[in-house]
Amino acid sequence: MEHKPKLVYITRKEHFNAAHRLYNPSWTDAENEAFFGKCANKNYHGHNFDLYVTLKGYADPNTGMVMDLKKLKTVIKTYVVDKLDHMNINQDVDFMKGQLASIENIVVAIWNQLEPHIENGQLHCIKLVETERNYVEYYGE
Amino acid sequence: MEHKPKLVYITRKEHFNAAHRLYNPSWTDAENEAFFGKCANKNYHGHNFDLYVTLKGYADPNTGMVMDLKKLKTVIKTYVVDKLDHMNINQDVDFMKGQLASIENIVVAIWNQLEPHIENGQLHCIKLVETERNYVEYYGE
Amino acid sequence: MEHKPKLVYITRKEHFNAAHRLYNPSWTDAENEAFFGKCANKNYHGHNFDLYVTLKGYADPNTGMVMDLKKLKTVIKTYVVDKLDHMNINQDVDFMKGQLASIENIVVAIWNQLEPHIENGQLHCIKLVETERNYVEYYGE
Amino acid sequence: MEHKPKLVYITRKEHFNAAHRLYNPSWTDAENEAFFGKCANKNYHGHNFDLYVTLKGYADPNTGMVMDLKKLKTVIKTYVVDKLDHMNINQDVDFMKGQLASIENIVVAIWNQLEPHIENGQLHCIKLVETERNYVEYYGE
Amino acid sequence: MEHKPKLVYITRKEHFNAAHRLYNPSWTDAENEAFFGKCANKNYHGHNFDLYVTLKGYADPNTGMVMDLKKLKTVIKTYVVDKLDHMNINQDVDFMKGQLASIENIVVAIWNQLEPHIENGQLHCIKLVETERNYVEYYGE
Amino acid sequence: MEHKPKLVYITRKEHFNAAHRLYNPSWTDAENEAFFGKCANKNYHGHNFDLYVTLKGYADPNTGMVMDLKKLKTVIKTYVVDKLDHMNINQDVDFMKGQLASIENIVVAIWNQLEPHIENGQLHCIKLVETERNYVEYYGE
Repeated sequence: MEHKPKLVYITRKEHFNAAHRLYNPSWTDAENEAFFGKCANKNYHGHNFDLYVTLKGYADPNTGMVMDLKKLKTVIKTYVVDKLDHMNINQDVDFMKGQLASIENIVVAIWNQLEPHIENGQLHCIKLVETERNYVEYYGE
Repeated sequence: MEHKPKLVYITRKEHFNAAHRLYNPSWTDAENEAFFGKCANKNYHGHNFDLYVTLKGYADPNTGMVMDLKKLKTVIKTYVVDKLDHMNINQDVDFMKGQLASIENIVVAIWNQLEPHIENGQLHCIKLVETERNYVEYYGE
Repeated sequence: MEHKPKLVYITRKEHFNAAHRLYNPSWTDAENEAFFGKCANKNYHGHNFDLYVTLKGYADPNTGMVMDLKKLKTVIKTYVVDKLDHMNINQDVDFMKGQLASIENIVVAIWNQLEPHIENGQLHCIKLVETERNYVEYYGE
Repeated sequence: MEHKPKLVYITRKEHFNAAHRLYNPSWTDAENEAFFGKCANKNYHGHNFDLYVTLKGYADPNTGMVMDLKKLKTVIKTYVVDKLDHMNINQDVDFMKGQLASIENIVVAIWNQLEPHIENGQLHCIKLVETERNYVEYYGE
Repeated sequence: MEHKPKLVYITRKEHFNAAHRLYNPSWTDAENEAFFGKCANKNYHGHNFDLYVTLKGYADPNTGMVMDLKKLKTVIKTYVVDKLDHMNINQDVDFMKGQLASIENIVVAIWNQLEPHIENGQLHCIKLVETERNYVEYYGE
Repeated sequence: MEHKPKLVYITRKEHFNAAHRLYNPSWTDAENEAFFGKCANKNYHGHNFDLYVTLKGYADPNTGMVMDLKKLKTVIKTYVVDKLDHMNINQDVDFMKGQLASIENIVVAIWNQLEPHIENGQLHCIKLVETERNYVEYYGE
């Protein structure tokens, strides 16, 4: 009855726990403290981050799926979660080297990590929830 | 003071519990098992599904509403929730007959069930949450 | 490595508790009761409202941020939360005077309160959650 | 295999939206304002209340249940939710007449409303969640 | 400073998705339907179950832990989650054979599965959440 | 009508974000790594911690309250949240000096911080949620 392919958006939620601090290395410690406040604490603080990865695409008629979520889970684990979970984002994460560890920068870096590995459908949005009151989204623009 | 009509999006969340399995009848059992894994279990498994129905439209100046949410609730109950709740999606649901019971296909079928019955505003999005880690959205395209 | 500025969406969630009733003063009490049902109760009822404010913009290279969320929090507190929290929306809130206290109207009024005070980035969306089953979004159109 | 009856605790969550204010009629308005702050606002404020009702008892071997949750839902609706939902707790609720509308007093009053109507098992706990940051429990002591 | 050992309660949450139906084989189909309503649907329905396992014990001074939560996670996975996830509780689960698949009975059966494998501390409570409105707890009595 | 005082339990939820690592200084780095795995990462990781503080007591007839939650909030902020929020628990927190930074030890330390400052009612339980899958409770025993 329904022959026209339908564009659906599928989302997988993953999770990691990490430490970070907000710190601009070209500023003095006092300037960092003045601007970032307690987020600049030199011994770091941390969060439970929730990560939502959304793809868009057409369901395959044989499987009813845009992309197998088990595969998507593996891709996210390999290229993002294993590199961030229980890590210090300022010190331990290769794809954040040389960047200020703000959630705005992290969300763009996660997009860049995942995009080459999405085989079915297209990466549509990365949403990163830092606390129950703050989150950031990036649509690749 | 505000005379230009404003386009607002209203969302109603409903809920149903159902069983399903992922199974392509033109494949062998072994092929289904190989592709869908435990989601193909022949005795079914199930979920608590959360359904979000979003309309867009202009608020009526007499009521302040796009559509009375009590009416929307009744429409969703009649055409979707009563047909899915405590049911087996592969066997008991007329509007899923002949379709693979993936959430991608279910969300499109729910759109088709609701769309003819939206009298005020326009159906904008159906979001179906299968587990706390997986969800699908469909915007009618 | 990344030189092109990236458009990110940042969201801050705030909260207020308020009383309201749905009531059209140009209708009789019986007409209000017939249309709005228990939502028209003359002694009011209330909700815990969750408010999501989303901005879009480009991260400042010096701070990694679109807008300092501490500043955004202060703006929301001053122009919205302090005026609504523990208040009666029909009686106590200057920016709702003369308007039906529906969530569709409240969400537009909150947009108008905040928009002049967003200094970095652009106001993108106001989302107001009235109950765990109902919410409204407004994108300024 | 298991012959000894097992003591299980079953909980049903229900929901109501209501207005209230904290106000001691034997104090002056200034004293109320000084003690209760914005919670004393004379035009009321409101909340979405979540109510958890817990029974304890032994599962009936014929039904596997302590008490049919459909029956428990009906009892809670009749004696509690229908009397509180979309109401003003200070003015509209018979079983709160003459009492300060604090959650501590409401939770005891809800216990007294329900206890005579629990036919299977025993009322064990009433938990009332006022906001995502405040809740009260009462065990009948 | 603190020498007396302290009794702490630690909880691990796990998750499984399963199908079930409420059905007493010694009743007729009509009797099952009359008592259990749509929960008796012969083609099954299903849920996302959240499982909370609580131990009590004294923290080991060398590790600061009652029991390594990674080990507890493995025990729960082996003896409970792998046997229930994506399964039909009435048909596929050895430790539920011959029992009515009510959450009251499932929670006791899960206790019996786990108890012999808790090496540090003591099993204190099993809580099983069937829907956002229903849950059951069992303390081994 | 109700003259006997009623024992009620009130809970306040607060929140902090912090970094920590699991590390026993009397073990080698290799031993720490072997036992604690990625939780021992030398550059720290972090969490959003939810803290629930429960008091028990009798409601004051003049206020309807066990303890003014605004006061309790201030006590928790002064003695716990201000010392933990955006901090490194291993390095920055006076009341955790010399202790392994496990949640079992943190929860006992929080009890000791708060107990001398509870003026109405009695401290009943501290619950600390580290991730959506792990939490610890302590009742002062």
